[in-house]
Amino acid sequence: MDYEDFFRAELNALPDSGNYREFAELERHRGAFPRATCHNGDRDVTIWCSNDYLGMGQHPKVLSAMHEALDRTGAGAGGTRNISGTTHDHVLLEAELADLHNKEAALLFTSGYVSNWAALGTLAARIPDCVVLSDALNHASMIEGIRHSRAKCVIWNHNDLVDLESKLAALPADQPKLIAFESVYSMDGDIAPIAAICDLADRYGAMTYLDEVHAVGLYGPRGGGIAEARGLMDRLTVIEGTLGKAFGVVGGYIAASAELCDFVRSFASGFIFTTALPPSVAAGAAASIRHLKHSNTERQDHKARVADVRARLDAIGLPHIDNPSHIIPVMVGDPVKCKFISDTLLREHGIYIQPINYPTVPKGTERLRITPSPVHSAQDVEHLVAALEHLWTQCELARMPIAAQ
Amino acid sequence: MDYEDFFRAELNALPDSGNYREFAELERHRGAFPRATCHNGDRDVTIWCSNDYLGMGQHPKVLSAMHEALDRTGAGAGGTRNISGTTHDHVLLEAELADLHNKEAALLFTSGYVSNWAALGTLAARIPDCVVLSDALNHASMIEGIRHSRAKCVIWNHNDLVDLESKLAALPADQPKLIAFESVYSMDGDIAPIAAICDLADRYGAMTYLDEVHAVGLYGPRGGGIAEARGLMDRLTVIEGTLGKAFGVVGGYIAASAELCDFVRSFASGFIFTTALPPSVAAGAAASIRHLKHSNTERQDHKARVADVRARLDAIGLPHIDNPSHIIPVMVGDPVKCKFISDTLLREHGIYIQPINYPTVPKGTERLRITPSPVHSAQDVEHLVAALEHLWTQCELARMPIAAQ
Repeated sequence: MDYEDFFRAELNALPDSGNYREFAELERHRGAFPRATCHNGDRDVTIWCSNDYLGMGQHPKVLSAMHEALDRTGAGAGGTRNISGTTHDHVLLEAELADLHNKEAALLFTSGYVSNWAALGTLAARIPDCVVLSDALNHASMIEGIRHSRAKCVIWNHNDLVDLESKLAALPADQPKLIAFESVYSMDGDIAPIAAICDLADRYGAMTYLDEVHAVGLYGPRGGGIAEARGLMDRLTVIEGTLGKAFGVVGGYIAASAELCDFVRSFASGFIFTTALPPSVAAGAAASIRHLKHSNTERQDHKARVADVRARLDAIGLPHIDNPSHIIPVMVGDPVKCKFISDTLLREHGIYIQPINYPTVPKGTERLRITPSPVHSAQDVEHLVAALEHLWTQCELARMPIAAQ
Repeated sequence: MDYEDFFRAELNALPDSGNYREFAELERHRGAFPRATCHNGDRDVTIWCSNDYLGMGQHPKVLSAMHEALDRTGAGAGGTRNISGTTHDHVLLEAELADLHNKEAALLFTSGYVSNWAALGTLAARIPDCVVLSDALNHASMIEGIRHSRAKCVIWNHNDLVDLESKLAALPADQPKLIAFESVYSMDGDIAPIAAICDLADRYGAMTYLDEVHAVGLYGPRGGGIAEARGLMDRLTVIEGTLGKAFGVVGGYIAASAELCDFVRSFASGFIFTTALPPSVAAGAAASIRHLKHSNTERQDHKARVADVRARLDAIGLPHIDNPSHIIPVMVGDPVKCKFISDTLLREHGIYIQPINYPTVPKGTERLRITPSPVHSAQDVEHLVAALEHLWTQCELARMPIAAQ
C-alpha cells in the first residue's frame, strides 16, 4: 500500500465538502486583546470568536502569577503527578477548584478534553455494568471517553427530559447509571435543564456528570458555572470544567467527592501516565479563578456586551439563535457563503470569525459563532455589525423581520 | 448502587497491594534545581527522579522566552487550533520540530500522551484494514491509542526481531501495517534496534512509528534522539516526541511527511477538539529545542554524570540494570522495601526518588529509577550513594560482586 497516496487522496476529498480546515495564524497583543496580528497576510485583526470569553488571558493578575511562578520554580513540572510532577501550585489550584464548586476535592488534567475522556472513560469502565446516558449533543471528548470505556451507552435526545426519563425507566433499577451532559452547549448556546435532570437522576439512582466548560468563570456569583447560578452544585456528582476558556489559561479538571476524585486519580491512564501541567500554568489559572470568585465586573460587562451585539443584530434583522447564554450563532446556512463571509471579514474588514461548517454543526446550519467579550469596545461592535450588514446584502442572505421603529 | 461505597472499597483494596500512590508535593527552586521544597513535611530535598533530564526547565533562555511571550501575547491561546487558537508561536515551534527531525512537517499536541493516543488512534483507525504491530513494552498512551482505533493489534515480544519478523510474515503482504515502538524504554532504559526494525518494515511494507520521548534533546548531535544519533531519521515514517522531559516544558508532537501530519491534523479528535497550548509554552519549548540543537555541553555533562553514578553504584555493589541509556534502575525487588527506602531517603537524607512498583513494572522488579542530570553536583552524587549504601545494609538487600580493588 502506498501510504502517502492514501493520505493525499483522503485530504483531496476534503476541500470538496468545504471541510478542509485552514488555520488562521494569530498573534494576540497583550493588553490590546481582542486585537491581534494575523500572520496569513500580515494584517491587524479584531478577534470575535475567541473562547477567552472575559479576556482573562491578558489580566495583570494572571500574568503576574505566571511570571512569578516562572521566576520561583521554572518552566515545566518535570514529571508525571506521581513521579516528581506534583507541585505546590497544582495542590493549591486543586484546592481552589474544589472550593469553587463546593466539592470535597478536585483533580487536574492536562486539558478539558483529557478530563472528560479520562474521567468518563474511567468511571464508565470501572463501575461494574455501568450504563452511560449521554446527551445527543455532547462534546467529542465526552463521546470518546464513553466509547473508550466500552460501557453500554444510551444516547438521549438533546435536552429532552421525556426521552431521558423513558430511557432511564427502561433500564433495570439496580443497574449503575451515569447521566452525562453539558450546561452551555458550545455551538447553539442553549442551556440544559439541570435541576430536572438531577430530579430524574435521584428518581432512577443515577450519577450525574456535568460539563461546564463554557460556563465556569462566566455564570454564578463566584464563577462556579450554571450549576452555581441555579444553586444546584451539590446535586451533581461530578462537575467538569476547563481552565482554557473563561479562565484564560489551559487545562481541565473535575470536582467531586474525595472518594470519586481519588478513584479517578488512581485508575485513569490519561491522568497517571502524562507529564503534569507547568506550575506557572497552575499558578495563572488559580489567580484567574480567585479573581473571578470576588469580581463580578467582568461577568456584568460580558453580559452587557452580549446583549448589545444581539440587539444590534436584531435591529438589522440578522438571524441568530436566541439563547440564554453568551454565545451568538449567526446563521448563514450555506458552507460556501459562510466561508466567503469569514474570508471577506478578515480581508476587507480586519474581523476574524472562524466559519463553523459540517461536521462541527449539521449541514444547512453553517454559522458564524460570535463571542463578545468585555474587552470589545462599542466601536468594535459598531464595526462588526456594519461589516456583517454589508456582507449580508452582498451575499443576498435572508433577514429576519425587523421590529417597527 | 451506593457509588461512594464502591469507590471507597476499590481504593481500600489498593494499599494492600502496595499500589496506592501518594504524591510528593514539591516546589522546585528555579536556578537551584535539583533542589526543591517538599511540602509534605516541609523539608528541603534533592530530586533524583525528574524527567527534566537536562535541567532545561530552569534554563535562562527557556524562561526568558516564556516571560517574553507572556508579555507580548498573554496567557492562553484562547481556542482550539482551528478556532482562534493557532498562534504564531505554535507555527514557529512546529517548524523547529520538523527541522529537528529533518521531516517535512510536525504537529503539536497538548501532551506526549495525547500525541501518541491521537496519532496512533487516527492512523490505525483510518487506514483501511490497518494492523498495528506493537512492542510488548510500549507506553500506556500508545496502547490506549491503538485500543481506541479498534484496529487489529499484534503484540511482538519486546525488542525481539525474530518475533517481529514472524508476525509480519504471517500477515497478508498487501495488508497495511504499522510498527509502533519506542527508542529508549523508560523503566529499563534499554534501546530498540531501530535500524533492524526499519529493515523489516521495508521488507514487509510497513510504516514505522517511533516514540522518542525519553531520547529527544538527549541523543544525536542536535538532540534529535536515538534515530538522529544512528543516522536513521529518514527511515522512520513518524517520530513522536515530548516537550515535557529533556526540553523542560510540556506538550507532545509528531514529525512526519506533510501529508501524514495534515491527515492527522484533519481527522484526530484529540487534536481538533481541544484548546491549543499557551503561546508561552510553545515559545519556551522552541527556545529549548533551538539551544539544544547547537549546544552539546548539556548532553556531555549528562552522560558524564550518568557514568559517574553508575561507577559509584558498581563500586559498592548496588544492583542496577546495565543499559546504554541515561536511566539507572536500581533494583530492590520488593515493594515494601522499595517504599521504605524511598520514604527513608526523603525523611532522613533529603533525597527524593519515587518508588516504582507494580503495575508500572512487573512484580519482583520493584526499583528506584534514578535520573542523574548535569545540574546534580559531585557532592549530590556522594550524598546519594552514601545514603543508598546505608539503606542497603539496613534492609539487608543483596549486593552484586564488587571488583577487586
